[in-house]
Amino acid sequence: MKQKIAVYAGSFDPVTYGHLDIIRRASKIFNHLVVSIFTNKNKKAMFTLKERKDMLKKAIGRDKNISIDCFDGLLVDYVKQKKVNVVIRGLRAISDLEYEFQIAGINRMLYKDIETVFFMPSAKYSHLSSSMVREIGKFKGDVSKLVPPYVAKIIKKRLS
Amino acid sequence: MKQKIAVYAGSFDPVTYGHLDIIRRASKIFNHLVVSIFTNKNKKAMFTLKERKDMLKKAIGRDKNISIDCFDGLLVDYVKQKKVNVVIRGLRAISDLEYEFQIAGINRMLYKDIETVFFMPSAKYSHLSSSMVREIGKFKGDVSKLVPPYVAKIIKKRLS
Amino acid sequence: MKQKIAVYAGSFDPVTYGHLDIIRRASKIFNHLVVSIFTNKNKKAMFTLKERKDMLKKAIGRDKNISIDCFDGLLVDYVKQKKVNVVIRGLRAISDLEYEFQIAGINRMLYKDIETVFFMPSAKYSHLSSSMVREIGKFKGDVSKLVPPYVAKIIKKRLS
Amino acid sequence: MKQKIAVYAGSFDPVTYGHLDIIRRASKIFNHLVVSIFTNKNKKAMFTLKERKDMLKKAIGRDKNISIDCFDGLLVDYVKQKKVNVVIRGLRAISDLEYEFQIAGINRMLYKDIETVFFMPSAKYSHLSSSMVREIGKFKGDVSKLVPPYVAKIIKKRLS
Amino acid sequence: MKQKIAVYAGSFDPVTYGHLDIIRRASKIFNHLVVSIFTNKNKKAMFTLKERKDMLKKAIGRDKNISIDCFDGLLVDYVKQKKVNVVIRGLRAISDLEYEFQIAGINRMLYKDIETVFFMPSAKYSHLSSSMVREIGKFKGDVSKLVPPYVAKIIKKRLS
Amino acid sequence: MKQKIAVYAGSFDPVTYGHLDIIRRASKIFNHLVVSIFTNKNKKAMFTLKERKDMLKKAIGRDKNISIDCFDGLLVDYVKQKKVNVVIRGLRAISDLEYEFQIAGINRMLYKDIETVFFMPSAKYSHLSSSMVREIGKFKGDVSKLVPPYVAKIIKKRLS
Repeated sequence: MKQKIAVYAGSFDPVTYGHLDIIRRASKIFNHLVVSIFTNKNKKAMFTLKERKDMLKKAIGRDKNISIDCFDGLLVDYVKQKKVNVVIRGLRAISDLEYEFQIAGINRMLYKDIETVFFMPSAKYSHLSSSMVREIGKFKGDVSKLVPPYVAKIIKKRLS
Repeated sequence: MKQKIAVYAGSFDPVTYGHLDIIRRASKIFNHLVVSIFTNKNKKAMFTLKERKDMLKKAIGRDKNISIDCFDGLLVDYVKQKKVNVVIRGLRAISDLEYEFQIAGINRMLYKDIETVFFMPSAKYSHLSSSMVREIGKFKGDVSKLVPPYVAKIIKKRLS
Repeated sequence: MKQKIAVYAGSFDPVTYGHLDIIRRASKIFNHLVVSIFTNKNKKAMFTLKERKDMLKKAIGRDKNISIDCFDGLLVDYVKQKKVNVVIRGLRAISDLEYEFQIAGINRMLYKDIETVFFMPSAKYSHLSSSMVREIGKFKGDVSKLVPPYVAKIIKKRLS
Repeated sequence: MKQKIAVYAGSFDPVTYGHLDIIRRASKIFNHLVVSIFTNKNKKAMFTLKERKDMLKKAIGRDKNISIDCFDGLLVDYVKQKKVNVVIRGLRAISDLEYEFQIAGINRMLYKDIETVFFMPSAKYSHLSSSMVREIGKFKGDVSKLVPPYVAKIIKKRLS
Repeated sequence: MKQKIAVYAGSFDPVTYGHLDIIRRASKIFNHLVVSIFTNKNKKAMFTLKERKDMLKKAIGRDKNISIDCFDGLLVDYVKQKKVNVVIRGLRAISDLEYEFQIAGINRMLYKDIETVFFMPSAKYSHLSSSMVREIGKFKGDVSKLVPPYVAKIIKKRLS
Repeated sequence: MKQKIAVYAGSFDPVTYGHLDIIRRASKIFNHLVVSIFTNKNKKAMFTLKERKDMLKKAIGRDKNISIDCFDGLLVDYVKQKKVNVVIRGLRAISDLEYEFQIAGINRMLYKDIETVFFMPSAKYSHLSSSMVREIGKFKGDVSKLVPPYVAKIIKKRLS
């Protein structure tokens, strides 16, 4: 019996309860899940790579099935080098589907063995995104229902 | 019998016939409608707050059921402070619905008493948006079917 | 100050927690809400008109702002005759939007003063419909999280 | 290390190249895949259960990771009894997503441990469905690019 | 210079102002347009083939660029035999797109030279369909804004 | 018999196999096709106008039915001046449809004789866009399945 590993990649800028919901669901389906932070050099993030890693660590805890990693460049090159070919995505809405199918389709053209597997988040997180959290944070709104306490604290400190 | 008040918030940069169609529809349903200009400090507008207020005033006229206001920060904080909990939105299309549900869902998470009420614009305005008007204006196109005459004149002057 | 009345029409075959969520939201926005059962002669319902009326009565209780009614024929003719011109709809999803815009658009062509106002149901009811409930009932599934206890009891009795 | 099992349920009336594409993809992700024919008593199928089973067997061959089964009633009751809680679905298009999210959402309400996992079919099968195949068959069209040769032969015989 | 011919197929049960809008648009783009009534033996129509042909003739008039025809069976077989390989479709909405892409995709699989060309109807007809017209007719509603006068008269007579 | 001419406008930054698929399809339907590069002064392109022209020339070859042109300003003004009133668009997905209908609707408001005609690209190019190609190029990914060899070579040179 072969071990089943999957990668869940994203900016996690910051990690939200929506991401954690997908991580929890995927970690039950696969033997091991790699949560990997995309350190896009072309786009300015609100939080540093170290901050985003710390947030994920605090949020995920000591689950042995889950490890945290980071990468730059194309996802297909990263998973090829990791010898993993399953990629996890959360699907929230129609506009997501379009974009996700576009990404997944191109990834397949670039690397035919890659398989993208989609999960449906819990209904209560279906409208949640990191950009929404950053937006609310900028206007000093209350993000405590959207992200874990540790993340909420950092957002508050950063933006005050 | 309690008075029913609603807020219709937006950038109105500039106000279009599509906005005016929603304002007319909503003002018939509610006892009072507050049209409130969002003065987003993080985003550069084409028109100043004063210009946008003047455009709305000219376009709406002396309808006693409608008042014009402005706000910065989060909509939920604004409506809480105004003690109004109905928010009006126009729904043009599928991509709107996604975005609108995301906003409305987050607003509900932040303030459970807020209620978002959606109107369908007249079919002839279903493809119209302020950004489209600005784009056409920049290329010196004719915007006279998209915005009221006073607004068309300002756009022409501004961009010549 | 004019009293604001709205109609929420549907088959309610049977009423679900999703309908009740919309009824609760709409009854706060309008001075009076008429919940009206469409007794479509061309389509066989699972429950009789009397059963559907009883379910709604039990579910809504003695809220003085809400009355229960029924109609056959076109909705536009019904609302014209009732002298109400606001119609309430719940919007769950993209495919709903298409269908709802089609109906609302045709209603406007038939009666220009009719205004359709859309509400967003609570996220937890965003996947719920009467047909789904009937389907689960037929397979003797548990509908207790989808409809009020009284309705669940009738479904169980009817399908055993 | 726990064995990862999933169920792929459907009417398979008849099985198409689209289904086989999803089966191939899912069988690489999970240790074992149960392809289960839904023998809906309330709906008349074109092919008998035995025919549909034979088609699937011929199409799948002797892959030891895949078994064929059938069930009636609710999918959630079936997977509970099988002690499997992962369900596979192929996602072709937007209208699929709506329907699939509705089903997956209701399944979660009925059985919180069920997890629905979505796969994207190969682009060339993104417009293919069993009902489309039946429709073309009825008009004596050529289905040889849509279903395996054995299935095409049965359709031809059945409809001549 | 080769003559450009296209086929616009449909049930036209009955023809609506929406169909006529597409016919007018397509007849300007192509040298000749064949409007072809699909006489689906598997589905009961409200109007006979003769009635539907008469409605189309009255509505289209003596435009020499347009001819009226009918067919049964698969559209691809019909256009192959007619030696035409352009098919016209009107696109109203998102759910249309899904369905239309499915049909167009399957048609391409069955006959690689067929080309489906989509037109956008006038905004005022974007919610109009034959089934909507039949539904309103059944409830004795006023269809005079949805179909030409001759068709409205037949509907009225038929359903009284 | 009037000659049928159409315009296919875009940034072509760079041209992809998806564009070439639409060009090939449209050039069979119309007597002449003008592929016109939009030289948007307000947006920085990756490739110069000359480079984009050269790419198109190499990709299209000596097809006499197709000419290459460029324009700035509004498309409606360009086609008016060219005395062409048919515009070609490729439709990939739902989000495209929304945007395309918005553009086509506004174009009709600005110039009532303009007709937008939509084509469906080959399924294998349904997820392909110039921005996707640029993104992959930036991360030094392999674009050889997405664009013609000449374009792939330029991208590689430019980004190394």
